[in-house]
Amino acid sequence: MSDFNFSNFLDHISLDCVIFGFHENQLKVLLMQMKYTKEWALPGGFMKEDETLEAAAERVLKERTSLDNIFLKQFHVFSDPQRSKVNPALEDLKESGAEPNIEWFSQRFVSLGFYALVDYEKVNPTPDFFSDHCEWKALEEIESLMMDHRKILDKALETIRLQLSYQPIGYNLLSEKFTMPELQKLYETILGKKLDRRNFQRKILSYKILNKLDERKKGGAYKAPYLYEFNLENYNKALKEGFSGSW
Amino acid sequence: MSDFNFSNFLDHISLDCVIFGFHENQLKVLLMQMKYTKEWALPGGFMKEDETLEAAAERVLKERTSLDNIFLKQFHVFSDPQRSKVNPALEDLKESGAEPNIEWFSQRFVSLGFYALVDYEKVNPTPDFFSDHCEWKALEEIESLMMDHRKILDKALETIRLQLSYQPIGYNLLSEKFTMPELQKLYETILGKKLDRRNFQRKILSYKILNKLDERKKGGAYKAPYLYEFNLENYNKALKEGFSGSW
Repeated sequence: MSDFNFSNFLDHISLDCVIFGFHENQLKVLLMQMKYTKEWALPGGFMKEDETLEAAAERVLKERTSLDNIFLKQFHVFSDPQRSKVNPALEDLKESGAEPNIEWFSQRFVSLGFYALVDYEKVNPTPDFFSDHCEWKALEEIESLMMDHRKILDKALETIRLQLSYQPIGYNLLSEKFTMPELQKLYETILGKKLDRRNFQRKILSYKILNKLDERKKGGAYKAPYLYEFNLENYNKALKEGFSGSW
Repeated sequence: MSDFNFSNFLDHISLDCVIFGFHENQLKVLLMQMKYTKEWALPGGFMKEDETLEAAAERVLKERTSLDNIFLKQFHVFSDPQRSKVNPALEDLKESGAEPNIEWFSQRFVSLGFYALVDYEKVNPTPDFFSDHCEWKALEEIESLMMDHRKILDKALETIRLQLSYQPIGYNLLSEKFTMPELQKLYETILGKKLDRRNFQRKILSYKILNKLDERKKGGAYKAPYLYEFNLENYNKALKEGFSGSW
């Protein structure tokens, strides 16, 4: 603990990040396993005295993933007065012998939840002081999480599901070039249900956020599917205005 | 100040509420004028030690408007480390002679922004300790606001504009029964632009959130417009799933 200094963090405010990646047709979440209690937890942290909340979230994300310049969105605040009363991280601190910080960690924390959608391939998962593993877990593999982290994860999922109905999603989650079946699979994974192939294609094309390339997926058969890329100008416009922004 | 006790509020966390009402075809915001500096500010407050953030926001809203059970949404966090460095409320505190609290008010506050859409007619605007006026201001009347409150207001507006593209809006803002021109005017006011009458009607009806009543607006001419009400079941479904939730 000697290389950590909590004295320049703001009291009462913590942040937790739900970092989603898409790999082998599964939606995955980056989790850490605590050293002593072995509980799984979302990556999180605190705000420095001279930092904005966004800078703190970017710092946490970079520390855990090595990624920079990632779209991070604050989506909810978790403020049950009891939520940090039982904090397994305290057990880890006691085991580590880091006595002076226990009082600081025992205070009430209001957690500001962020989610990020990142490129699975580019992430270099890195544990923090409290954890000895940091790894991707597929949604269906995740059972209990530390404190209220399961609730934070579920709320993040609910948020991106609603987001699918009014904003594009996929940039950063898919490769630069992707097929229509790959994009559909991403939507199906987030929504947790199968979609009709023709309806999906008609609807997603109507949003004008895709460029169809004159190129088919490599290594495929004669009828390999065409590749698409996002039209970033329209994609960013839709992020700002929503799909049906044309009132 | 004797009847106020700040010792049971959490350090560093404040909340600010952008309360929108619709009256005489204008979108209005509830503001307070500070007693000494005469600056205008958003209603706000702090979290008690035993309170959730939502309970704190509901308490603030109730104190300023006398309204209960209002849809309040946390939409952004304002965390510039400099934002509370110049705080006119401190001047008010000094003028009031409330010395012991000045230090507490001088700390850094991260503000959690909420917006609410309320029924203008039902609000009973009530100043707080720092203010001697609490009143509705039409958007176009509002010039500068205290601290970063203008930024908070603008971000709230941006948020409800985006919300118009994927969720219904209007319940709580309009009377229980309203005409299509009244609903259109609400949308136009929020969006800050004129809309085509026929396109608006076609689009809003396609969302199935309205019940057309067999009743025309009272006091009108022979061709007075029909009245509508929200179909609350579909309205609430659309709030949860978005308009195009049918992926």
